[in-house]
Amino acid sequence: MTSLIRNNRFNRLRPAKLADVRIRDNFFDRYTKLVQSAVIPYQWDALNDQLPDTEPSHSIQNFRVAAGLEEGTFHGFIFQDSDAAKWLEAVGYSLAHEANVELEAKADSLIELIGQAQEEDGYLNTYFQLKAPDSKWKNLCDCHELYVAGHFIEAAVAYYQGTGKTALLDIVCRFADLIAQVFGPDEDQIHGYPGHEEIELALVRLWEVTKEDRYLALAKYFIDQRGREPNYFEAEREQDDFFDFYHNKNHKPILEYHQAEKPVREMDTAGGHAVRAVYLYAGMADVAAATGDQQLLDAAIRLYDNIVEKQLYITGGIGKSNHLERFSVDYDLPNDANYSETCASIGLALFALRLGQITKQAHYHDTVELALYNTVLSGIAMDGKSFFYVNPMEVWPHNCKEHTMRASLKPQRQPWFGCACCPPNLARLLSSLALYACSVKEKDLLLNLYIQGELQVQVANQAVSLEVTTDYPHDGRIRIRAGAGDYNLLLRLPAWCRDHSLTRDGKPLEAPLQGGYLRLAGPFADTEILLNLHMAPQRVYMNPMAPEECGKTALMRGPLVYCLEEKDNGPHLHQLRLPKDAPLTFDRDPALPGGYRITAPGLRLVHETEDLYSTSPGRLIPQDLTFIPYHAWANRGENEMRVWVQEG
Amino acid sequence: MTSLIRNNRFNRLRPAKLADVRIRDNFFDRYTKLVQSAVIPYQWDALNDQLPDTEPSHSIQNFRVAAGLEEGTFHGFIFQDSDAAKWLEAVGYSLAHEANVELEAKADSLIELIGQAQEEDGYLNTYFQLKAPDSKWKNLCDCHELYVAGHFIEAAVAYYQGTGKTALLDIVCRFADLIAQVFGPDEDQIHGYPGHEEIELALVRLWEVTKEDRYLALAKYFIDQRGREPNYFEAEREQDDFFDFYHNKNHKPILEYHQAEKPVREMDTAGGHAVRAVYLYAGMADVAAATGDQQLLDAAIRLYDNIVEKQLYITGGIGKSNHLERFSVDYDLPNDANYSETCASIGLALFALRLGQITKQAHYHDTVELALYNTVLSGIAMDGKSFFYVNPMEVWPHNCKEHTMRASLKPQRQPWFGCACCPPNLARLLSSLALYACSVKEKDLLLNLYIQGELQVQVANQAVSLEVTTDYPHDGRIRIRAGAGDYNLLLRLPAWCRDHSLTRDGKPLEAPLQGGYLRLAGPFADTEILLNLHMAPQRVYMNPMAPEECGKTALMRGPLVYCLEEKDNGPHLHQLRLPKDAPLTFDRDPALPGGYRITAPGLRLVHETEDLYSTSPGRLIPQDLTFIPYHAWANRGENEMRVWVQEG
Repeated sequence: MTSLIRNNRFNRLRPAKLADVRIRDNFFDRYTKLVQSAVIPYQWDALNDQLPDTEPSHSIQNFRVAAGLEEGTFHGFIFQDSDAAKWLEAVGYSLAHEANVELEAKADSLIELIGQAQEEDGYLNTYFQLKAPDSKWKNLCDCHELYVAGHFIEAAVAYYQGTGKTALLDIVCRFADLIAQVFGPDEDQIHGYPGHEEIELALVRLWEVTKEDRYLALAKYFIDQRGREPNYFEAEREQDDFFDFYHNKNHKPILEYHQAEKPVREMDTAGGHAVRAVYLYAGMADVAAATGDQQLLDAAIRLYDNIVEKQLYITGGIGKSNHLERFSVDYDLPNDANYSETCASIGLALFALRLGQITKQAHYHDTVELALYNTVLSGIAMDGKSFFYVNPMEVWPHNCKEHTMRASLKPQRQPWFGCACCPPNLARLLSSLALYACSVKEKDLLLNLYIQGELQVQVANQAVSLEVTTDYPHDGRIRIRAGAGDYNLLLRLPAWCRDHSLTRDGKPLEAPLQGGYLRLAGPFADTEILLNLHMAPQRVYMNPMAPEECGKTALMRGPLVYCLEEKDNGPHLHQLRLPKDAPLTFDRDPALPGGYRITAPGLRLVHETEDLYSTSPGRLIPQDLTFIPYHAWANRGENEMRVWVQEG
Repeated sequence: MTSLIRNNRFNRLRPAKLADVRIRDNFFDRYTKLVQSAVIPYQWDALNDQLPDTEPSHSIQNFRVAAGLEEGTFHGFIFQDSDAAKWLEAVGYSLAHEANVELEAKADSLIELIGQAQEEDGYLNTYFQLKAPDSKWKNLCDCHELYVAGHFIEAAVAYYQGTGKTALLDIVCRFADLIAQVFGPDEDQIHGYPGHEEIELALVRLWEVTKEDRYLALAKYFIDQRGREPNYFEAEREQDDFFDFYHNKNHKPILEYHQAEKPVREMDTAGGHAVRAVYLYAGMADVAAATGDQQLLDAAIRLYDNIVEKQLYITGGIGKSNHLERFSVDYDLPNDANYSETCASIGLALFALRLGQITKQAHYHDTVELALYNTVLSGIAMDGKSFFYVNPMEVWPHNCKEHTMRASLKPQRQPWFGCACCPPNLARLLSSLALYACSVKEKDLLLNLYIQGELQVQVANQAVSLEVTTDYPHDGRIRIRAGAGDYNLLLRLPAWCRDHSLTRDGKPLEAPLQGGYLRLAGPFADTEILLNLHMAPQRVYMNPMAPEECGKTALMRGPLVYCLEEKDNGPHLHQLRLPKDAPLTFDRDPALPGGYRITAPGLRLVHETEDLYSTSPGRLIPQDLTFIPYHAWANRGENEMRVWVQEG
């Protein structure tokens, strides 16, 4: 087992510790403060069933019943425990930034409760404890048991890193030890793996803080066992004691949906349920890096390449089929029926971040940035109190009708979901933003995202301070005060940037490119660096291998995708056109959600007849068009939205 | 009750009897002969489970088991009996045209078997007889019991009209008498109605041949009871003896899906499951006409207008959402996710035909023609051996992937369906084509469709013969030899026709328009009439209230919609454009399925980069485009197809 680690030849970059980064960013502060002041407290109320007019979560209550503190039974989704775990994870990140006695007390009380609910042998899952105690591990395909365990583990690691407290870590180690006994290659062990991936990457994080190699070995086992013949998901259904949760014992499981149609090392196309897929791929990258497994890393990179080259929405969304929330096929990127789940883009960011850390290539952070600034932030309202699960490229509220193929599209964010995966996932991501901002390796300090704030970090055994001042993503000018020290600074040059300039203490500088980063060699001594990433509105076109967007264009400026909203442009957005030669003007407008806009002289197609079909093509009349950032849409009540607009 | 009929003030037109019409049409003969020579025999084999490599139907076997002739149980869909009924209906029409001793013997044997399977009290439904004998009428919402009864009744009427034999008519009268006892307004009767409509129009047909008013009254009861408060479908689920077929007792039924959200007279938007909807509306028209109920007729016309003005595909398809095979909302006409079930267009033709007969307005027959020549014929392969259930506007085989939102789209016709509603429905429609061709009322003989053949019909007590010679729908020239007699001839002027000319015995004639028909006053004496409906390829545009087709055009010529196929135009049809000024050329090409084509100089958008997104719009290169008739697509193996093409 120790060979696993000795073989680590990837020199993976490490993110800064959360405590080392102080973010005070004009763009993100709204969201990170909302997470602290609104989302985390709101979600605590949700977990405790104290939100009016909202479906109760039952999450905390389930733990109380499992702990024997209350009479009752389990309520909610089979993975309801994971909501509490994701909340604890977010709290862990939040406390790493800023102490909050009251919040920490709430979290500690929940952790104590979880400890009370845990069984003697370490088992922890209130659904099975309360509803199906004899059916543990009897339906890995459908029942999210290992998925929930993974979220407990991630919460424990974050809470330990944020507070130094080990109570939850002890709980999850006992649980992970049980899982390591139950699952494995031995004859008396279960040769299965999760139907919903997540525990793989969680176990690597647990290994990182505990240094216990058995957790890494277990993660590797789950990844390598997946998709082998005979297929475990098919085999478990044949067992007499199979737990037939969905009453579908006789249905063959959709193996591709679960990324289990073949061994992961043989995969070359991202497939199946999008969230599951990217969680798995992130875990593959983690295990590959930790064990020096080039073949596994190659597979992860192949899957990543497939996503960004053939299956990615311009907003960083993934998961094209609203039926089963899944990937479909290359170049199939429908605009009004896509799923693009907020959680899937969070998972994509997790995955890309890992590949960036392992390979030291900046372009992976382009994907992180795209997902983060567009789909992920679209997932949360600007008041932090409502959430999108599904993030389409166009919405026509008129046809978002229940019991039709567009039922999953919502023209407005929802206060809290019965299936509440996205809101707590958003909270944990936004609380851990600093992990995405920069990385350190030996003498190199890498800036991956341009977020305003200060950094105090150890680089090659020196305490280095860095101050970043910027109005990114609306302004491409980034001022960096590089504190004294002998280190190198690597600044990501985003793929969207066509032109840039750089000065060091006022003098123009041509910095060499290294893996997509501008490399500034140290030493520094309170050096002022000015990076100007020239930002102008750009028309973006999709490869015409994709049917839906042929003849259409989308507008971007910097990493932000823009969209048309009905509030600014009137109804029937599909009638609008952006002529090929129309100039694009960017300016600030504080009255708009997002505060900025792109305007252009456009056209609207109008018709003279009421007939559904006619031989008249209609006529085009002038209309000025206003585009706002995609992430800011649907903050002014229900209305139409559209990213891709017909050109010409 | 008799007041119902006395109040008949609509003077509904009557179609010619099948036996009076001899079709020998260049266009339809392929299909009508196929129905005789291939489809009906093939379907007989299917009903008898004698097709290799095809899921067994079990339909005949179910009757044998119910009759006690064989051991076993019920197999197949809950509405499996209706396949046998639709086959018998098609045979009835077929025998009306042409005797076939062998076929009649098979049908008689099946009818005898059905009689043996019928219960003492008249009940007939092998699913309930074999699987749930105590649950008859205990789940009207989900279980198709009255729907299947309706198809038995339609079969009996057609078989009686085709052969004069009453055995099946007697069977269904006994069953209908039982239903009339069980359902009705009295306290000891069930106040329900079918979850899948069909029996309403069937009962009116039964009334027409039997003159038994109780059948008309029962049809009217089902129509007027529908959607009243308290809602029957909600109430039946509350009953202790509810038959919980789908294990969804606790789910509220989707009332709109079943056209039961409000009384039908209050409806103004076609909604819910498309086949059910148009069968209901056809029944409403029938009952309205038979009882002189203007309010009910107005409701039917309002629903029809909603369909053709806001919910109709250019091919005469209806049912926009593949999820639940249903109508969605006005102007929502997606091209790659629509259902446009073959059966729904057959139902639309039935509905429009009735409104045409009642109102004497030609435009209703435009809809019949559109549905018939495009979606309905698309439902059957040119060899008659495979069938489309779903008829989309564009198909990209690459993304028709199982377990995604496009799983219902098939790039190739299927040999026979597990749910085999469309093939027998097609057979019965094509066997009864003559009913759609012409109608008679008093001294008026109306030609609604231009099908080559001869007619011998009674008009105002005169035996009139008519001969129609034409190569319609590919040629707009129609030669009519009007046999001697004092009658008027009304020739439908199709809505697609921009220009026409008419001669009578060689002399140019300006005929007045009457309800959309060119009216030629009699008497005639072997008069030669030449009608020339000028036919040229036309670009058709959709009202820009509909999002999907903005900036696109579709080609039609006469009633035929044309489409691009990959076989003629290469892959990635979405990259093709038809410039606004490109000339359209029509010509014959016997090598093509359908035998005709429209060609035009077009363009293809190509890209220089492999990137999914770029700032380059790509470039347009010239490519000649070939369009073939929509109904003829997918007769050369799996390939892409597209109706709407980007213009400019």
